[in-house]
Amino acid sequence: MRFGFVNKQNMSILTDLYELTMAQVYFKDGMNKRAIFDFYTRPVENRSYLLNAGLEQLIYYLLNIRFSKEDIQYLRSTGKFDHDFLEYLKNFRFTGNLYAIDEGEIIFPNEPVVQVEAPLIEAQIVETFLINTLQLPILVATKAIRSYSVARGTVLVDFGLRRSHGTDAGMKAARASFIGGFAGTSNVLAGKEYGIPIFGTMAHSFILAYGDEEKAFKAFAEKYPENAVLLVDTFDTLKGVENAVKAMKSMGMKRFKGIRLDSGDLLKLSIEARKILDASGYKDAIIIASGGINEYKIKELLDNGAPIDGWGVGTELVVSADLPYLDCAYKLVEYDGKPVMKLSKKKVTLPYKKQIYRFYKEGKIKDDLIVAYDEKVKDGKPLLKEYIRNGELVRDLPSLYDIRKKALENFETLPEEMKDIKRTIHYLPQISNKIKDTVEKIKKRIMGKL
Amino acid sequence: MRFGFVNKQNMSILTDLYELTMAQVYFKDGMNKRAIFDFYTRPVENRSYLLNAGLEQLIYYLLNIRFSKEDIQYLRSTGKFDHDFLEYLKNFRFTGNLYAIDEGEIIFPNEPVVQVEAPLIEAQIVETFLINTLQLPILVATKAIRSYSVARGTVLVDFGLRRSHGTDAGMKAARASFIGGFAGTSNVLAGKEYGIPIFGTMAHSFILAYGDEEKAFKAFAEKYPENAVLLVDTFDTLKGVENAVKAMKSMGMKRFKGIRLDSGDLLKLSIEARKILDASGYKDAIIIASGGINEYKIKELLDNGAPIDGWGVGTELVVSADLPYLDCAYKLVEYDGKPVMKLSKKKVTLPYKKQIYRFYKEGKIKDDLIVAYDEKVKDGKPLLKEYIRNGELVRDLPSLYDIRKKALENFETLPEEMKDIKRTIHYLPQISNKIKDTVEKIKKRIMGKL
Repeated sequence: MRFGFVNKQNMSILTDLYELTMAQVYFKDGMNKRAIFDFYTRPVENRSYLLNAGLEQLIYYLLNIRFSKEDIQYLRSTGKFDHDFLEYLKNFRFTGNLYAIDEGEIIFPNEPVVQVEAPLIEAQIVETFLINTLQLPILVATKAIRSYSVARGTVLVDFGLRRSHGTDAGMKAARASFIGGFAGTSNVLAGKEYGIPIFGTMAHSFILAYGDEEKAFKAFAEKYPENAVLLVDTFDTLKGVENAVKAMKSMGMKRFKGIRLDSGDLLKLSIEARKILDASGYKDAIIIASGGINEYKIKELLDNGAPIDGWGVGTELVVSADLPYLDCAYKLVEYDGKPVMKLSKKKVTLPYKKQIYRFYKEGKIKDDLIVAYDEKVKDGKPLLKEYIRNGELVRDLPSLYDIRKKALENFETLPEEMKDIKRTIHYLPQISNKIKDTVEKIKKRIMGKL
Repeated sequence: MRFGFVNKQNMSILTDLYELTMAQVYFKDGMNKRAIFDFYTRPVENRSYLLNAGLEQLIYYLLNIRFSKEDIQYLRSTGKFDHDFLEYLKNFRFTGNLYAIDEGEIIFPNEPVVQVEAPLIEAQIVETFLINTLQLPILVATKAIRSYSVARGTVLVDFGLRRSHGTDAGMKAARASFIGGFAGTSNVLAGKEYGIPIFGTMAHSFILAYGDEEKAFKAFAEKYPENAVLLVDTFDTLKGVENAVKAMKSMGMKRFKGIRLDSGDLLKLSIEARKILDASGYKDAIIIASGGINEYKIKELLDNGAPIDGWGVGTELVVSADLPYLDCAYKLVEYDGKPVMKLSKKKVTLPYKKQIYRFYKEGKIKDDLIVAYDEKVKDGKPLLKEYIRNGELVRDLPSLYDIRKKALENFETLPEEMKDIKRTIHYLPQISNKIKDTVEKIKKRIMGKL
């Protein structure tokens, strides 16, 4: 069993109180039959598709969830739990099954991304962490591949650690953006733990401390002759480029890595900077842009011919600024062999344990079909795979590099119109007649009772 | 030295690569004189003020930052660092000073919330973590107190753990929202670690598993007769309220805690639900609303007379949905005794080590004045306090409950027009002549050189 880096802290009580109070009632009532829960997303305004990520941490959690002595002690101290239930929690294990869509696969609204099949109490208790651990990676992987989709081969690097929502988010964002086509991250711990390439340039403070651009550039290039990306906008960007050239010339450098623009009119400045660099014989020196970068700006700048070779994408990537949360849910869809659903005018819950089949035409996704797990479907690629059976891992976990490779291949199967970052196509998967009929039957039954 | 709960993981290399590469250049060049860095926020569109939070974790980090053997090993493996510098890192300690505005204090744009005074290398290396650890708490504490400001004494509970950006964000959000006037959280681990009251109701899955509202309500109330908040909207909200009443009556309950509405027209439904509860003799039963709640909806519902007693505020709180990141910076403002600044048309950096004085009139904030640290100011409350001196904690840390109490008192000092959640007043603090003159001098000097 080979894991990449995962957060190994004990997260059993990083959960909503109601998971545990409901569990205690289930426990007392002997309500612990086989339950199926779906984790799925609902349609959103500005995404035609999502890129799946975050599964590995969930798997680690399910295989390792334990209630420690300390946890039990705290729960006892709340006065909300009785002895028998706390004894049960002491020996708690996840003994169920996990079906999931691979990380790096394209996903659409209403599709179960993850399906938990387990005794009700277990399936209920893992809800909060499950949603918490999947949402952000999906958001960031999706945001990342949107940048990748318009970057035309230019290099994308995650610069977002400082603006991510805490430490765990910083790690998750580095991993998810790498899956989504980024070349690396500025996050050193992510480099260490995930084996992701790490990148960095220099800060304005570096220039200010030296008090003089030429001096600062020389100092840096002396230590890092191969890797100096010189930040040129501390005082005046084009003067800064000239100072960079002057510094490199005075050191006798035949080539240097490049420059970074962090403010101002990036189109104009990159064109002018390119001219200066080329005219000085530094045709190989690259131009990196940063500062409020997102997929829309990348597209606009490249569409207008900005000679930018790489991007430091920070804040808007790691907080998924134009979509900082997913409308996602973890819903009971079957209990004790019976399909169930919540009644709702707008929101869909699909009963049954399910499978999703993906159909392709000429290498592009044609349609997804959601069926009950026991329905036979010809052809089509089944998307939900069994990762955990009876609490044991039964599937090899791919390496992060393999997930990334797959993600970029999967991205190519998207119909071209769905890749458009400015237009949202609200694709919804097909649903089998068996499921549809059951939805109608349950609706009628509920309405009849009301 | 008494700390509340803090994340004790070693975070020394949870940092941007450039902090370390710049540090190595400084190290090699002997550039390690006393530096002052300011952490401050810039004006934003939809906030008139911010509520400070997150300091305790920063203090813990500064007192404990160490580079482990493993960290050093990884850094060596990158080929970017040489032996001498890695030896230096082995013995790295933060030996500087930290000046900071208290948690729970009102802050405005351009004010140094935190000021680090330390040898340049140390002050540089802590940058990334410092911003990461402060931004989210400030965002969430501010978002929380905005809800508090319109809640008219109704109870606010953080329900956001599942939608927070990872595990650390879930903990930070619970703590910060408590500071911002929330009564508690659904997050059990936050309850344990911070001693915050924990709350919970029940999920739709609970109703679905029992297959019948009355049965489910009874099961829950039997176990939790004092604390059953019954979720009534699984099928039809008002029928759900009737079923709740029926269940409680059949159990002979003279009173019960209340109900939760999680969807639909909350104004209409809460009014109707109130009628049903009152008519049934359950005048004490409270109504909790949840589902996409934010300060705007709370205000609108209460303005329209919705008889709602409490709120489960989730997603929009914990991701600070209408402001998912702060425009904030950590900038060098003085090096080796010399004031410095970056030249920028729009963005302000204020040179010098500074102090902020707050002036009040009739109990309300009248003005803030930013001065150089050595300027004498009469009256006024100094906001920056010395927390760390020469790497040692020199100030008692207040308890979380004291921070919360202070925050709510401080909130009352805000001028009424600044409390308006729909209007943004762009208040900027006053700046002393000494600082202004220096800004002009530096500008001239830089422009002259360009």
